[in-house]
Amino acid sequence: MGTIHEVVEITGHIIDSWTLPRAWDIIMDRGGNFVIEDIRIGVHKDDPSYIRLKIEAPDDAVLELILSELQQFGVALVHADDVHTARVEQNGVLPANFYSTTNLPTQVRLHGQWIAVEAIEMDVVIVIDQEHKRAYCKPMHEVQTGDQIVVGHEGIRVQPFERDRGREAFAFMQSNVSSEKVKVLAIQEIARQMKETRARNGKILFVLGPAVIHTGAGRYVAELLRRGYVQVIFGGNAIITHDVESALFGTSLGVNLESGEQVEGGHRNHLRAINAIRAVGSLEKAIEVGLLREGITYEAIKHKVPLVLAGSIRDDGPMPGVIADMQEAQRRMREEIQGVEMTIMIASMLHAIATGNLLPARVRTVVVDINPAVVTKLADRGSFQAAGLVTDAELFLRELLEALS
Amino acid sequence: MGTIHEVVEITGHIIDSWTLPRAWDIIMDRGGNFVIEDIRIGVHKDDPSYIRLKIEAPDDAVLELILSELQQFGVALVHADDVHTARVEQNGVLPANFYSTTNLPTQVRLHGQWIAVEAIEMDVVIVIDQEHKRAYCKPMHEVQTGDQIVVGHEGIRVQPFERDRGREAFAFMQSNVSSEKVKVLAIQEIARQMKETRARNGKILFVLGPAVIHTGAGRYVAELLRRGYVQVIFGGNAIITHDVESALFGTSLGVNLESGEQVEGGHRNHLRAINAIRAVGSLEKAIEVGLLREGITYEAIKHKVPLVLAGSIRDDGPMPGVIADMQEAQRRMREEIQGVEMTIMIASMLHAIATGNLLPARVRTVVVDINPAVVTKLADRGSFQAAGLVTDAELFLRELLEALS
Amino acid sequence: MGTIHEVVEITGHIIDSWTLPRAWDIIMDRGGNFVIEDIRIGVHKDDPSYIRLKIEAPDDAVLELILSELQQFGVALVHADDVHTARVEQNGVLPANFYSTTNLPTQVRLHGQWIAVEAIEMDVVIVIDQEHKRAYCKPMHEVQTGDQIVVGHEGIRVQPFERDRGREAFAFMQSNVSSEKVKVLAIQEIARQMKETRARNGKILFVLGPAVIHTGAGRYVAELLRRGYVQVIFGGNAIITHDVESALFGTSLGVNLESGEQVEGGHRNHLRAINAIRAVGSLEKAIEVGLLREGITYEAIKHKVPLVLAGSIRDDGPMPGVIADMQEAQRRMREEIQGVEMTIMIASMLHAIATGNLLPARVRTVVVDINPAVVTKLADRGSFQAAGLVTDAELFLRELLEALS
Amino acid sequence: MGTIHEVVEITGHIIDSWTLPRAWDIIMDRGGNFVIEDIRIGVHKDDPSYIRLKIEAPDDAVLELILSELQQFGVALVHADDVHTARVEQNGVLPANFYSTTNLPTQVRLHGQWIAVEAIEMDVVIVIDQEHKRAYCKPMHEVQTGDQIVVGHEGIRVQPFERDRGREAFAFMQSNVSSEKVKVLAIQEIARQMKETRARNGKILFVLGPAVIHTGAGRYVAELLRRGYVQVIFGGNAIITHDVESALFGTSLGVNLESGEQVEGGHRNHLRAINAIRAVGSLEKAIEVGLLREGITYEAIKHKVPLVLAGSIRDDGPMPGVIADMQEAQRRMREEIQGVEMTIMIASMLHAIATGNLLPARVRTVVVDINPAVVTKLADRGSFQAAGLVTDAELFLRELLEALS
Repeated sequence: MGTIHEVVEITGHIIDSWTLPRAWDIIMDRGGNFVIEDIRIGVHKDDPSYIRLKIEAPDDAVLELILSELQQFGVALVHADDVHTARVEQNGVLPANFYSTTNLPTQVRLHGQWIAVEAIEMDVVIVIDQEHKRAYCKPMHEVQTGDQIVVGHEGIRVQPFERDRGREAFAFMQSNVSSEKVKVLAIQEIARQMKETRARNGKILFVLGPAVIHTGAGRYVAELLRRGYVQVIFGGNAIITHDVESALFGTSLGVNLESGEQVEGGHRNHLRAINAIRAVGSLEKAIEVGLLREGITYEAIKHKVPLVLAGSIRDDGPMPGVIADMQEAQRRMREEIQGVEMTIMIASMLHAIATGNLLPARVRTVVVDINPAVVTKLADRGSFQAAGLVTDAELFLRELLEALS
Repeated sequence: MGTIHEVVEITGHIIDSWTLPRAWDIIMDRGGNFVIEDIRIGVHKDDPSYIRLKIEAPDDAVLELILSELQQFGVALVHADDVHTARVEQNGVLPANFYSTTNLPTQVRLHGQWIAVEAIEMDVVIVIDQEHKRAYCKPMHEVQTGDQIVVGHEGIRVQPFERDRGREAFAFMQSNVSSEKVKVLAIQEIARQMKETRARNGKILFVLGPAVIHTGAGRYVAELLRRGYVQVIFGGNAIITHDVESALFGTSLGVNLESGEQVEGGHRNHLRAINAIRAVGSLEKAIEVGLLREGITYEAIKHKVPLVLAGSIRDDGPMPGVIADMQEAQRRMREEIQGVEMTIMIASMLHAIATGNLLPARVRTVVVDINPAVVTKLADRGSFQAAGLVTDAELFLRELLEALS
Repeated sequence: MGTIHEVVEITGHIIDSWTLPRAWDIIMDRGGNFVIEDIRIGVHKDDPSYIRLKIEAPDDAVLELILSELQQFGVALVHADDVHTARVEQNGVLPANFYSTTNLPTQVRLHGQWIAVEAIEMDVVIVIDQEHKRAYCKPMHEVQTGDQIVVGHEGIRVQPFERDRGREAFAFMQSNVSSEKVKVLAIQEIARQMKETRARNGKILFVLGPAVIHTGAGRYVAELLRRGYVQVIFGGNAIITHDVESALFGTSLGVNLESGEQVEGGHRNHLRAINAIRAVGSLEKAIEVGLLREGITYEAIKHKVPLVLAGSIRDDGPMPGVIADMQEAQRRMREEIQGVEMTIMIASMLHAIATGNLLPARVRTVVVDINPAVVTKLADRGSFQAAGLVTDAELFLRELLEALS
Repeated sequence: MGTIHEVVEITGHIIDSWTLPRAWDIIMDRGGNFVIEDIRIGVHKDDPSYIRLKIEAPDDAVLELILSELQQFGVALVHADDVHTARVEQNGVLPANFYSTTNLPTQVRLHGQWIAVEAIEMDVVIVIDQEHKRAYCKPMHEVQTGDQIVVGHEGIRVQPFERDRGREAFAFMQSNVSSEKVKVLAIQEIARQMKETRARNGKILFVLGPAVIHTGAGRYVAELLRRGYVQVIFGGNAIITHDVESALFGTSLGVNLESGEQVEGGHRNHLRAINAIRAVGSLEKAIEVGLLREGITYEAIKHKVPLVLAGSIRDDGPMPGVIADMQEAQRRMREEIQGVEMTIMIASMLHAIATGNLLPARVRTVVVDINPAVVTKLADRGSFQAAGLVTDAELFLRELLEALS
């Protein structure tokens, strides 16, 4: 073994951030080996460390696999070349050996200079615009013949996710997805960060599932909208229809939100709510003509907060404004994610996962769900930055509002 | 109270099937009252019973609400008129007071004659074709200006879901969503019914989630396809991509299905699998050129089993063949559901709920998931006929295959 | 079939309460048959109904099985004899054919007179004290040679659990174990009933699991104790040790409850807390000497609220006051349950199930847990009266305290 | 800060095993600081590394806390003294500053020599027998006046849990508690290790919950007993009563295990089963007189496999043989754990946690449960060596038996 090799180096808090042990795991798990050529460990906890490793592999495929996985920990080739690209020969089809992104800050070397990749998100590719010295992301289905796509692992630098001891509340939530933690502390910390984010004019994105309305918590989101704590909302047909049903008839799937009683058989009010909006033409029109006078949709439109409503296969109706085409919906979500600094996902699985796929790692993300599996699922998809809170959506929103006062 | 009223009658096993107590619950819960005008209880357990009730309500809205909910239990107006209709005045918008369907067999009275509503499904409307004396279902967004839509509750007869003591295996599964039951018995009963269904040439629909591939159980579904036990498959981008990834690279999200080890970092093989199929143009073409040689997709296409692949907002790619437009996807699902007599849903939530919405109640449905919440959720949506099995998808399929031998 | 039979009658809201259909189900499911000899259905919803059924069975065993199961729905033999008894011949061993109780109000006929069974609970037996014309419950292991134990089904009358439309908040919670409900409404209703219970001097029992402390919610229970809303507490070694650890060191399993940080490695403070109390001898002594100055234990002892602490196989220590013998612990629980009118079980499974086993059906019981399986499990054990609230223990207690203000 | 300090050293695969980053985390999280005095990183992956750290802390309490937590990672004081002890002054009460054990192999220095602590388990204390140069564990409640108990952190050496790349199947299960894995592979690996364990005459312990019987899987455990794969069983009143009910009446909580039908009302057969055994006196006697002829209990007693049955507060009966006193039950469990090399815990939470508390880390442990929370809970308690399998108990046992053939 070890006929081919590559030399890489890592700098930073590589032990404290567990970068080094994880790197060694990957090298060995994928069938490679390594020799330490140089190592300088910081003597105090704040000192950065440096390591230079010779990575050996039995063949090119293994070496490339190791290098591509190591890149997400910030490992860089010592003899870095410019980034390599290949031309798209067919719309929507990538060149072989395409580089698949992480959601971490990424740079590519162009003519000897490192430039940042714009609008980074995970599992897409990087297009190089040589003329304007730009690098940006594109999902597979949007690549066009002639696009220059990054391939291989040369000339790519990823900035790893370093743990921030100052973000204690997030850290403690991240440590473990558990319902057996003091939630009031976490909620106060979230409120503090929301205030900070707004103080510097950062955007806060809410991703909402239908249970927010079923549990009567729509009123709290409406209040957050009035207070300026929501800059964009992602959701689907269900949440918006429940919200309109609640505004028009006081029910959610036929259950009266004041009394908790089922006052209508299942889906009838749901369908009537959709039909009422279809009859006037749009949610905006429904507000204009005085049909829709309260709720999340009403407040969002009134405060010019964009609502991106993505359809799904299980939808009734659909409600006007819901995007039926999935690629168009993703495109709209990508657009509105620009500038988002904080994301709060509540009682949603489908839309939360979809949003998690699109968010850069630097966005602080809070996932609130009563079901621990939802948070775990998000973490599995690579959204390392997500802090999970296993709690009740309704009571969470009530407390959050209080903590923001 | 009680200034207006309506007289209804119910016939059949109204106590045994719990029709009567449920009807009384609804009348009282919705604010009405009742007087029994006539009652004849069958003396032996096989005798049908008959009851005539005068339902009193404080106003029209309450009376109509009660009557519309009672209809799903087979309650019929004594003085039945012909069905009432109203004309659609705007594409995709229903007349006020539209009748929203259940998934139970339904008849409407046209010129004094009861005719069956075709392709019944729940939460849609009934269109009357006077000329051809036909009645059929349409979802809201497909109604066209000029369509005659059933409104109110006159001239509508629903055949309630009567418990069948002969379907014991299903009955025992239905009784309780629990993992603490003898699953081998249930699996043998499911196998028996699959054989019966195929013996009379009935269609069996499989709805599959991605965990089927992750757990290495794709091979069992492929075998079911080869043995002729699958007539149609519903799924999404994820299951089909994992299947292709598994056929092309032996991995599912980078995990080797033979060794259980992660051999590739996360989503790279996933994206490569999609890209490989996009490069040749389609799944069919991939088989033709010898790229795809095994797996669920391969067997389905080879055995001409329709695959309806509906997209979702969280999809990568997408894989060619995945339908991006949600209304088109629902339309294709409706098409393929015709003739289905049995449905087996495995490790899927989104597609299982979507399919449950479209299935008539008479289709025997088995929901297999390790998470009890998924089955409960389906039952909440009105899919009364669903029998839940809280168990492991992989081991379920292994046992099912053995039970079918 | 039908060589032997028995005639029974049922009176009351037998259709509204679903008594009749359930009775018919049981007769047929167990292999019997029936003929209606007389039926008088109430004409208005408030009228009681009456039915006389001849139940036929193939043999004595089936007939007895049917009759014993029907009794819990209030079905009574028409030709009621005095209750039959058999003598215990060996300590802790029941006569064959012993009558196993339900948790419903029960009467037995003694010398032609119906007398109430004292301290009813489920799955125990009834001892007849002929001399004092008393009937009371005993668990199997406590029966003594010479005890007269009720056998068979003659002379036993059970008062079924009739749904009370006036208890709407409970009704709506009972209808479905779901996290997708408006919890604030339910919490306000619980608060209202707690106030009512205390107004008439009724006892409220709290059953508490360790997560109450981990989530920092111990302070809310302490406040409930100070306000007089807790008359008895059931728990185990874990909750009480966490409470003492929290009072002594500010941590729960080493996690600081103010900052959410792990300040001590795992179980060390836990063991130190137990050891500190063992050193002074008892929890009471720890308060006396000024060691324990706050928390649930402190408030309970100060307000003379009995704490029944039952040990378990997984306990460290144990803490002084924890009962190591399971039969002694059950005996103490039985003792303290006398007079309890309302029970609130929070984040506990083992102790909640144990308590549910001992509670008569008339006690209003609220089960609060973030895990739906816990509530379902309680309901499965026959605690029909339990209303489940799937929510966060910490936020529930916070809201409850506010609703009680 | 940093007025006091201590110098420690760590040797071994300290980066690969993540020892070093974890140690640094603890030092900083607890408020200390460190300076690297010497570091020698192995150049190849198989080379051990060495590091000498000066740990600084603001005061003695923090320093001691850090040192005591670091010990479980194998960190040893450079200037190691003999172990310190203090005398127990009161039965069942520990000296202040007692050393609380981990479940890892531990040595103490006695007169300059390192001796192994016998029967190590976590959260207990170490007693030093100077005379016989022995060190062994005792739980708090068993310490006697005069016992010499280890205190502080001097002269204690813990051997950390090093990941073994050869135990791949276990490794892949440990990596993540997920139901979305290939379970057949894991089951085959478990079977392989059971065979190995038996080949060298190692004991295999099964911890069983009642669902094993409810799901009809008792027959598979009985077969494992017959084939010699079970050397000891831990369980409770429920499993053993269900097993006897199943052997005597063919039901489990009244559900017929052949047909899946409820043939008896709830708990009656359960109570009858207990009563039948109480009448003859013991489980052994029931076999002798021919009453009990099959099932887990029957096979266990016949093959002289010890059954440790620990009672709990929720038990009916109890069944003869169930230990009512919790400390006695723990004592019996400790006794039977000696020599156990592999533990398989199925569908049990209470007994699994209790057993996990007592097991040394070297025992290979498999936790099988359909509920992911159970496995997570075990891992939280410090049972690092547990490999979790989220799957169906019944189908797991069926497959395991097949894999053992």
